[in-house]
Amino acid sequence: MTKSLNIGMIGYGFMGRTHSNAYNRVPNFFDLEYRPVLKAVCGRNAEAVQKFADTWGYESVETDWRKLVARDDIDAIDICVPNNLHKEMAIAAAEAGKMILCEKPIAMNVAEGEEMCQAAEKAGVANTVWYNYRRVPAVTLAKQIVDSGKLGRIFHYRANFLQDWTIAEDLPQGGEALWRLDAAAAGSGVTGDLLAHCIDTALWINGGITDVSAMTETFIKQREHQLTGKVEQVSIDDACTFMCHFNNGSLGLFESTRYARGHKALYTFEINGEHASIRWDLHDLHRLEYYDHADESIVRGWRNIHVTDGDQPYMDHWWVPGLQIGYEHTFVHQVADFLEGIAKGEPVRPTFRDALETQKVCDAVLASAKDRSWQQV
Amino acid sequence: MTKSLNIGMIGYGFMGRTHSNAYNRVPNFFDLEYRPVLKAVCGRNAEAVQKFADTWGYESVETDWRKLVARDDIDAIDICVPNNLHKEMAIAAAEAGKMILCEKPIAMNVAEGEEMCQAAEKAGVANTVWYNYRRVPAVTLAKQIVDSGKLGRIFHYRANFLQDWTIAEDLPQGGEALWRLDAAAAGSGVTGDLLAHCIDTALWINGGITDVSAMTETFIKQREHQLTGKVEQVSIDDACTFMCHFNNGSLGLFESTRYARGHKALYTFEINGEHASIRWDLHDLHRLEYYDHADESIVRGWRNIHVTDGDQPYMDHWWVPGLQIGYEHTFVHQVADFLEGIAKGEPVRPTFRDALETQKVCDAVLASAKDRSWQQV
Amino acid sequence: MTKSLNIGMIGYGFMGRTHSNAYNRVPNFFDLEYRPVLKAVCGRNAEAVQKFADTWGYESVETDWRKLVARDDIDAIDICVPNNLHKEMAIAAAEAGKMILCEKPIAMNVAEGEEMCQAAEKAGVANTVWYNYRRVPAVTLAKQIVDSGKLGRIFHYRANFLQDWTIAEDLPQGGEALWRLDAAAAGSGVTGDLLAHCIDTALWINGGITDVSAMTETFIKQREHQLTGKVEQVSIDDACTFMCHFNNGSLGLFESTRYARGHKALYTFEINGEHASIRWDLHDLHRLEYYDHADESIVRGWRNIHVTDGDQPYMDHWWVPGLQIGYEHTFVHQVADFLEGIAKGEPVRPTFRDALETQKVCDAVLASAKDRSWQQV
Amino acid sequence: MTKSLNIGMIGYGFMGRTHSNAYNRVPNFFDLEYRPVLKAVCGRNAEAVQKFADTWGYESVETDWRKLVARDDIDAIDICVPNNLHKEMAIAAAEAGKMILCEKPIAMNVAEGEEMCQAAEKAGVANTVWYNYRRVPAVTLAKQIVDSGKLGRIFHYRANFLQDWTIAEDLPQGGEALWRLDAAAAGSGVTGDLLAHCIDTALWINGGITDVSAMTETFIKQREHQLTGKVEQVSIDDACTFMCHFNNGSLGLFESTRYARGHKALYTFEINGEHASIRWDLHDLHRLEYYDHADESIVRGWRNIHVTDGDQPYMDHWWVPGLQIGYEHTFVHQVADFLEGIAKGEPVRPTFRDALETQKVCDAVLASAKDRSWQQV
Repeated sequence: MTKSLNIGMIGYGFMGRTHSNAYNRVPNFFDLEYRPVLKAVCGRNAEAVQKFADTWGYESVETDWRKLVARDDIDAIDICVPNNLHKEMAIAAAEAGKMILCEKPIAMNVAEGEEMCQAAEKAGVANTVWYNYRRVPAVTLAKQIVDSGKLGRIFHYRANFLQDWTIAEDLPQGGEALWRLDAAAAGSGVTGDLLAHCIDTALWINGGITDVSAMTETFIKQREHQLTGKVEQVSIDDACTFMCHFNNGSLGLFESTRYARGHKALYTFEINGEHASIRWDLHDLHRLEYYDHADESIVRGWRNIHVTDGDQPYMDHWWVPGLQIGYEHTFVHQVADFLEGIAKGEPVRPTFRDALETQKVCDAVLASAKDRSWQQV
Repeated sequence: MTKSLNIGMIGYGFMGRTHSNAYNRVPNFFDLEYRPVLKAVCGRNAEAVQKFADTWGYESVETDWRKLVARDDIDAIDICVPNNLHKEMAIAAAEAGKMILCEKPIAMNVAEGEEMCQAAEKAGVANTVWYNYRRVPAVTLAKQIVDSGKLGRIFHYRANFLQDWTIAEDLPQGGEALWRLDAAAAGSGVTGDLLAHCIDTALWINGGITDVSAMTETFIKQREHQLTGKVEQVSIDDACTFMCHFNNGSLGLFESTRYARGHKALYTFEINGEHASIRWDLHDLHRLEYYDHADESIVRGWRNIHVTDGDQPYMDHWWVPGLQIGYEHTFVHQVADFLEGIAKGEPVRPTFRDALETQKVCDAVLASAKDRSWQQV
Repeated sequence: MTKSLNIGMIGYGFMGRTHSNAYNRVPNFFDLEYRPVLKAVCGRNAEAVQKFADTWGYESVETDWRKLVARDDIDAIDICVPNNLHKEMAIAAAEAGKMILCEKPIAMNVAEGEEMCQAAEKAGVANTVWYNYRRVPAVTLAKQIVDSGKLGRIFHYRANFLQDWTIAEDLPQGGEALWRLDAAAAGSGVTGDLLAHCIDTALWINGGITDVSAMTETFIKQREHQLTGKVEQVSIDDACTFMCHFNNGSLGLFESTRYARGHKALYTFEINGEHASIRWDLHDLHRLEYYDHADESIVRGWRNIHVTDGDQPYMDHWWVPGLQIGYEHTFVHQVADFLEGIAKGEPVRPTFRDALETQKVCDAVLASAKDRSWQQV
Repeated sequence: MTKSLNIGMIGYGFMGRTHSNAYNRVPNFFDLEYRPVLKAVCGRNAEAVQKFADTWGYESVETDWRKLVARDDIDAIDICVPNNLHKEMAIAAAEAGKMILCEKPIAMNVAEGEEMCQAAEKAGVANTVWYNYRRVPAVTLAKQIVDSGKLGRIFHYRANFLQDWTIAEDLPQGGEALWRLDAAAAGSGVTGDLLAHCIDTALWINGGITDVSAMTETFIKQREHQLTGKVEQVSIDDACTFMCHFNNGSLGLFESTRYARGHKALYTFEINGEHASIRWDLHDLHRLEYYDHADESIVRGWRNIHVTDGDQPYMDHWWVPGLQIGYEHTFVHQVADFLEGIAKGEPVRPTFRDALETQKVCDAVLASAKDRSWQQV
């Protein structure tokens, strides 16, 4: 008999859509003990949130998130709001005994994240952060390949996340749609928004980071602020690059920018090991490249793996070999794993505590860029 | 106020899943007058069909398709069964005044298809055939580009659809899962299954075909038949190639096989025009390649277009630039267009009549291969 | 002690350059018993041929090819002139006891080619035809892979050669530079020029062809003829496509055109076998793609082999892994193999007799296109 | 009337071959006032150097480089020896009034390079350093595109040079073939060997570098030394990464390693500008990728330019569109440009002084890695 898991979501922007879609689709593709029920969605604009609820099938709406958190018929709170609101909501949810699914990055900084971890752990509630790219099948496969030992000793890990959507000088900052350009709401620019994804994947696959040396840049220094209507200093990092050492002795190189003309969401990583290497690229997320030095020399080359086979992570739930899935499926996978985790009583990774490790690297990166010095993580 | 369109689906195999998913998702992503309601699904195995109904949210089940067709609460019949059953069901549905969404190819041959067309036209019911690949955004974009005149005079159209799943000699034929290997159920092998897609797209983009010269082959001559348990002659074409002339004077070259090791669902096409060319590949369906001779010569080259921008067909309904969609979305688009068509009272392409044109080419191809001669279409 | 092989070349156009370069370079990269000496080059325009001789280091020039053939100090005649002149020159060279290196295709048709074979065989002189693409390292590697049995039973062989240089309607035909557009000089259009390469490679790698069904087209029907200054009917095939059966039971599909906008010299082939497949593309001639079904399923994919390793054909003579060679090196390899062959007293493939097999297919293709019927080869 | 330029080359290893080939080939492909004459080659092993001379056509040999430099019949000294010998030889050549073509990097460090510059400038002799990758046609084209203003303001420049040939722990260091692994002979590891190329290209295309922050690593700490036969500390950097600011405000990111399994000579760079971006990759050196935001949005994408057209740099000297050249041609181009430069009396870039700028960056990079601090260049 299927059990319901009643979801209460705060926020209904872009991430609200991806999560709602995931809750709706998971029962069609995964045979699980729990089935999510879209109980309520919360937003300050009553009309807009109602329209969202109608589109996605939420049973009710709230305009005060504290009321949502207080409702008895809600099992889990999903936090899809700007980063500066995560801490307060997560702690309130934990105190109300709700499970928590929080958008990334976990918080504005390590101090906030630590409070959230403690609150969730004290309450003993299931908690996770939406680092969805772990659950691209090709990325999960990369993790499996590394864990299997096929790469041997790791020498290099490099990742970047390149976009180009903020090049126009007349793009404003701040407000509802553009809060990611306002450090007061987002905490940082590309570091928390994009590099955080790269770091989460890296820590998961390649282990902890020891120290970092970073460089940030703000190319467009002033933009009109949507909340004040005035031209104001841009407070975020438009681009961030850092070098690092991993605990396993490998070298890391990370870069992110919103000024790489021609790239929309080019998250890529490459791992070079003693025996084999792996490459992945979000623009063709259904593919994984793999080079194995053990192949016979005359026919050795980078393999381009079309990750659509039933043997490969998650793919037995979808179609047939050769038919690709897309971006939104990563969220479906995360919901499926979350539901499976709570059924088994096991933590679902990344937990708040896992996400805090990523936040530590982000904070060290920003400190390093500010001080022009190496920083321990 | 949204209107319901009550769906009754016959069949619940692979295509049953793709269609059910499409009906479920369309209201989340498209703002339309009609909303599909999964009223009933029909299959002979009561237990299996009930499980399918539970998974996808069908309100009821039937085990006799004639009962489904007779139900007053059904607006549209969706036919997802082997090809040898299309004609009878479609005609019955038309006679019952139901709209019809029929899987491709339309029928076993032109004669059957013609009967279906006449029945649907006589009844005046909306009718369409699921040639879903037209609605890959990149394919729709290709159509737009050709229609815009960017290519000028067309010289060449070439397409293939390559798979490798039947190479193993111990794969049986026939029965529920493998009816595509049995001509009694499927009508033909790769011609109706795979080339039909290629032909549908070609007729849509490049216009009618005049004559064809074809070659077919059955590489594995005998396989165990699942219905009889005996080793029997294989009745289908394992591979089919044909050359043709289009009405517009361009040359066509088509190939399909299930014996191309390394290709899972490699449907590709390329169109060479006087001024520009286009290429597409189902294995990376979110990309379109485009070459424009009008580009400045020193920077002229094939453009690799990541078809994820809001300006491009259907993509304003999904995520943001750089984030790809996948195979299943083609069905969502077809449902959305169907719903929009019935709201406007306009035919939704491809209609039965459109699909009959594809069937004519398929029949001519099979006749040509048999006679080793050119055949008029 | 190095022996000289005195070369007398007839013709000094594009192929004259590629061959001269090959003769000059082979001693720098191959340690061989014979060293070519550029003794004489022959052309009707004394001034132009002298300039060519100066550029490439020929010791002398001739303006009458019969004089060149008669010279005692010439060991080998290299024929780099339009196809309608091959027969007479080759026979004269054979009768003078000279070795012969003849440009492809061997002749205007099978009858001429047969005469040439008989003359060369009667004279007992070394003879070869410049089907240079066999000696792209990646193509030679493809041959090795197939011969090793890695592919198992072959199901499909497909090749094309796509260009776009004759799309402009005001391009004239005939005369020195454009004799390839004049059937009186070339014998045929793309069939002899481009498909002949594809056929040579196919016969070499996949064995003989049994029968063919072909289609040709002349898109631009009239062009100014440079020899007459008048607009005349275009006599060549602008495009040619054919299907065929190979003796080994596999199916072949070949296409060539000079009207494929965006492709300059896109010679590609793909071979699908029971266990593995191979693809190659002249636009990236230093790469070979290979798919091996024996690879572990989760990391199975097309391998992109950078054919620059010392283990791979010819590459131990060049640079280091990762550093590519180009088009002209194929001619160097052919000269090296020719020199090695004569040192060992062994025939160098393709011999005239080998090239005649390609001519037989070309003739059958043209006959099939004319008659719209299948033709035995 | 062609003038001779008598070359005296010191060294006959890998670079000796590339240069000798270039001298031999340039007259066949470029119509120039000067023609190189291979007058003499110098090496300490008389037998080996004689064999080299025979292979490449040098008229004479020397075993003492000072004698070579002193010869009256030598116009230009080409220095192809380990880096620790550059300074002494170059200064002697300059003092003897010879032109100098020196392998890269210019010297062991900036101080040495400065002495070389002063010597050459004092003597007033033509001087150049073999940063050959500038003269890959696609790279020269990239320079032209940037200079044309098509990119607008530059935001990012990133480059890497990845190899994998030193991963084996039992590879020794030092001696004739492996001097690049010995800092006493090479000055540094990947920084001077590989990153120097990346830096040269970057300075040429994107202008000067202000400051750097670098990280180096030696993965294999000890290797047998071929000169001593003993296991000794490895003195070079196996990998080096650095971040930097360019004078034009753009950010730079550079990486090099010999531990990137699967990459043989993967020199790549990418430049992101306000309006357009460029990418290049040595493994497919005949291609350039270009993205232009000015393209119509529905058909906008990265263009893959096959740089083989007569309009593109150097390509009018080679074959026809679609037919690629390779690695060695970069040296031919450099010789051609050198000969043209001396005919015109103009400096040939990069001069010693240009190469010194690259050395300054290399020195700053090594200092930064040592001190873990940002360094001004």
